[in-house]
Amino acid sequence: MQEWYFEDIPLKQPLTTSEYVVTEEELIAFARKWDPLPIHTDPEAARASPHGGLIASSTYTHAVASALGHRMAARPLIIAGNETTSRYLQPVRPGDRLVATSECVYKRESRSKPDRGIARFMVTLRNQKGESVLELESTLVVPRRDRG
Amino acid sequence: MQEWYFEDIPLKQPLTTSEYVVTEEELIAFARKWDPLPIHTDPEAARASPHGGLIASSTYTHAVASALGHRMAARPLIIAGNETTSRYLQPVRPGDRLVATSECVYKRESRSKPDRGIARFMVTLRNQKGESVLELESTLVVPRRDRG
Repeated sequence: MQEWYFEDIPLKQPLTTSEYVVTEEELIAFARKWDPLPIHTDPEAARASPHGGLIASSTYTHAVASALGHRMAARPLIIAGNETTSRYLQPVRPGDRLVATSECVYKRESRSKPDRGIARFMVTLRNQKGESVLELESTLVVPRRDRG
Repeated sequence: MQEWYFEDIPLKQPLTTSEYVVTEEELIAFARKWDPLPIHTDPEAARASPHGGLIASSTYTHAVASALGHRMAARPLIIAGNETTSRYLQPVRPGDRLVATSECVYKRESRSKPDRGIARFMVTLRNQKGESVLELESTLVVPRRDRG
């Protein structure tokens, strides 16, 4: 995987990953450990709910986005990630095939530290119907190539 | 655990959980699956880094916050969670003992749907030194007790 310094990050050029297939087994096992609500762990209870079946814990959906981030052709080097806003747009269900798209929507040099820059990325997770299930907007602190 | 309808949610009354002890083994195993960066998975490489040792993947820190949410004495029923802002304030390290505090900072009835309300929660994860490591601000849609 290519690693970007601040100068290398292309603006408004989205990269998309391969598919992550969500299995019922993994969705349930994750939720049992980290978010044991019946809607995430109990197929019977979930079928009787307004969702009509199991849906993934939001933490699981984040974890899939993180795993897909490691399949990008390139990603920024990161000094720190200060703040992320997550928007949950559709439930994730067993059998879903998810892809992530990542795009730098804004970047600037740091005003106080010449060895780094600030880059804002929008990551969108979509299912096999093309529906966005999760949007992540993250502000990252990224090293500059020849400074510091 | 007590489950709150919209009317039951107390404003500005924080609840705190018991401790979650972060083990190196769990931190590494989680990151190997979901966020395999050396800073999260390789103690040697992490020691040589500016962090001076392993730090947790942000996704792992979220997962701990989620697990601690299930140890609250009470929590709201949830129709949907639309948006969460996460602030990463300090790295989480092996051996850390984390507690979560949750507080409703704002609530209002829905303007369009009489069977529900909107509640904004601030969840803070703190380590054994009292440092905040993660803040989560979430807007939840919560059912009203006798409407709809």
